[in-house]
Amino acid sequence: MKKLTIPKETIGRLPFYLRQLEKLREEGEEFATSQQITENLPGIQANSLRKDLTYFGSYGTRGTGYSVPRLIKELKSLLKLKDRRKVALVGVGYLGTALLNYHEFGHGCFDITLAFDKDPSLIDREVKGVQIEDPEVMESRIKGEDIEVAIIAVPSDQAQPVADSLVSAGIEGVLNFAPVLLDLPEEIRVFQIDITSKLEEMNFYL
Amino acid sequence: MKKLTIPKETIGRLPFYLRQLEKLREEGEEFATSQQITENLPGIQANSLRKDLTYFGSYGTRGTGYSVPRLIKELKSLLKLKDRRKVALVGVGYLGTALLNYHEFGHGCFDITLAFDKDPSLIDREVKGVQIEDPEVMESRIKGEDIEVAIIAVPSDQAQPVADSLVSAGIEGVLNFAPVLLDLPEEIRVFQIDITSKLEEMNFYL
Repeated sequence: MKKLTIPKETIGRLPFYLRQLEKLREEGEEFATSQQITENLPGIQANSLRKDLTYFGSYGTRGTGYSVPRLIKELKSLLKLKDRRKVALVGVGYLGTALLNYHEFGHGCFDITLAFDKDPSLIDREVKGVQIEDPEVMESRIKGEDIEVAIIAVPSDQAQPVADSLVSAGIEGVLNFAPVLLDLPEEIRVFQIDITSKLEEMNFYL
Repeated sequence: MKKLTIPKETIGRLPFYLRQLEKLREEGEEFATSQQITENLPGIQANSLRKDLTYFGSYGTRGTGYSVPRLIKELKSLLKLKDRRKVALVGVGYLGTALLNYHEFGHGCFDITLAFDKDPSLIDREVKGVQIEDPEVMESRIKGEDIEVAIIAVPSDQAQPVADSLVSAGIEGVLNFAPVLLDLPEEIRVFQIDITSKLEEMNFYL
């Protein structure tokens, strides 16, 4: 599998194919065509799906399409979703608390196991079984637990220093909710969830 | 201005250019080259920016680049961000509460002015000056306030019926946080903020 040649757009579409296939499975479908899988995916054409899947050696059969359970298994394996992954959360304000309480969070594949906040009134409190800790111990705790993914849910002005500490702690991937662009080493994967940018983008079309 | 010919990817990049330009303005820059504007935008090349801006008739000057205040003004005008826009929120659980309390929300251009939740213990409560109302009155309230944008922050199984009611109420754009793909008329703009999909996408690279 030559990972380097797979376009990032293709990778970005895989979770949506997976979600749609799981819905089809729930509806009792054994096979699905590229049209069925992309039916409710706005902006994704059936031929994009067919092309995306050829990167991974999956080809549908004309007429019947793809085996739903097999494709789910392949996509989960590609996205490495077979094991639960531990995640560290920095910032337990309203948004961080929402993430800790969100039972649909992570599709059963991600667990927030560490949470940090510098607010002394929050430290040592427990939210959904996770004890909030002082950011002072963040680096050693993350290293000790061998955690690779972190979520940043702090105010904008604290996002960059928090991200720098996370990188020192050995974090490889960051999901950033702060509306600020982080300056991090190239090998760190940063995914931005920018609610404001989405609203602005929508605004253009209205 | 022929809007229909502008690629959706271009529109999606504009909010990021705007954010970066505002940062440069804060740092006192009067002019910025395409390299400077895209420096901290992972995955966006300087030549993409130059091409994107030509769709709107903006051309930089070789050597000096673009006028920062002028380009900010043009982008804000393109994204129609000059006036504050009223937004309705459906679902005032942890995430909805986070959105209501999030002071950086919407970059000063969006105001959540209506909020709905079917939980009787929440109805009539006030969060940040917004009174939570019964979804029974949602359609008439949204029509009465002439609101065009709504945020869905309800559990997955309620997202589709909520979205249907919003469409009946005349909503044109939906920001959906529920990890479910909505089936809505084509003319409705749906933007998905899918935290789980982002984590799954990141997982591929780790």
